[in-house]
Amino acid sequence: MNKQGDLIVISGFAGAGKGTLVKRLISEYDRFALSISMTTRSPRNGEKDGREYFFVTKEEFEKTIAEDGFLEHACYVGNYYGTPKAYVMEQMSKGKDVILEIEVQGALQIKEKFPQAFLIFVTPPDAETLRKRLIGRGTETPDVVEKRLLRAKEESVLMDRYDAILINDDIDTCVKDAVSYIDAAKASPKRCYEFLERIREELK
Amino acid sequence: MNKQGDLIVISGFAGAGKGTLVKRLISEYDRFALSISMTTRSPRNGEKDGREYFFVTKEEFEKTIAEDGFLEHACYVGNYYGTPKAYVMEQMSKGKDVILEIEVQGALQIKEKFPQAFLIFVTPPDAETLRKRLIGRGTETPDVVEKRLLRAKEESVLMDRYDAILINDDIDTCVKDAVSYIDAAKASPKRCYEFLERIREELK
Repeated sequence: MNKQGDLIVISGFAGAGKGTLVKRLISEYDRFALSISMTTRSPRNGEKDGREYFFVTKEEFEKTIAEDGFLEHACYVGNYYGTPKAYVMEQMSKGKDVILEIEVQGALQIKEKFPQAFLIFVTPPDAETLRKRLIGRGTETPDVVEKRLLRAKEESVLMDRYDAILINDDIDTCVKDAVSYIDAAKASPKRCYEFLERIREELK
Repeated sequence: MNKQGDLIVISGFAGAGKGTLVKRLISEYDRFALSISMTTRSPRNGEKDGREYFFVTKEEFEKTIAEDGFLEHACYVGNYYGTPKAYVMEQMSKGKDVILEIEVQGALQIKEKFPQAFLIFVTPPDAETLRKRLIGRGTETPDVVEKRLLRAKEESVLMDRYDAILINDDIDTCVKDAVSYIDAAKASPKRCYEFLERIREELK
């Protein structure tokens, strides 16, 4: 309906499967582009600059803040994380729907700046499934699992600030649902403003 | 996601094809139920009580108003028109999505009373197509066509109060899009409130 792409924000509980969802959307659909965050933290084993993150110095990050170069940014445990604006804007202007996988606070910052952004919250069908997935990863101690569930509890309060609740029970269905929701979102008047302007003008 | 059905309001320009759309949704999908309006105007040739409208006396209509029996009602050119509440509520509680085909003012009344109602505005791809369809019907004088276009101009101002703009270029696509938009709308937090309540409770 509109030629400009949309900004798609994906958040969700740790263990909800949003990482897998995002990977599949990017690899299976040419229409999506992935926004890569910038951070001042050090790369972990196997992480590659420009793939997981753009790894920069504190000075470079602060220079980008000063130039108003971020869509959103925040500081966690002494490290900066942010979404560089230029890449997102460039891809959207090419008609790509740009996907941002970010946590709840960042997502709500985006919503405030870009009311036309479409916010998806990924959740398992119930808390028991979430608990099992977190334990099943086998990489987390019981203590960490409990911390993540506590975090999920806090995040669950903000779920209704999102545009769509995406239940990930089966990943194939979840990927298809995500695409359907994104397609349907384009019919919202705030995302087909050009069409409305044009037909109003024609009816004059 | 929720077992309760939703309230779907369909409006659009005269000549946009919303009548055909509604007929096809009702006849092709068992999940939908059609709300029939009540009116005090006389039946026209070929109209049948309980199909196009429920035809009632002024006294019966006013009794229903007094009993708070309408979702919305209005008076046009000396006749009452309204949406009886009981049928809509009954069908929704059975899990049916109830379709109301009503004009813009009534639709916005519904939105105010039921913020979780999903409002679809049907439009042709451009004003020229609308003009051609109105002329092509062959039942309207040029004068009436102009009046309908003037009405369309007025209605176009209120299009952005709707949840979805449905472009009817090809009726088959239009029917499919309507169903997709209605499906996607169910992922909105305000329409899957039961799920949110449950998972929040489970995470406590």
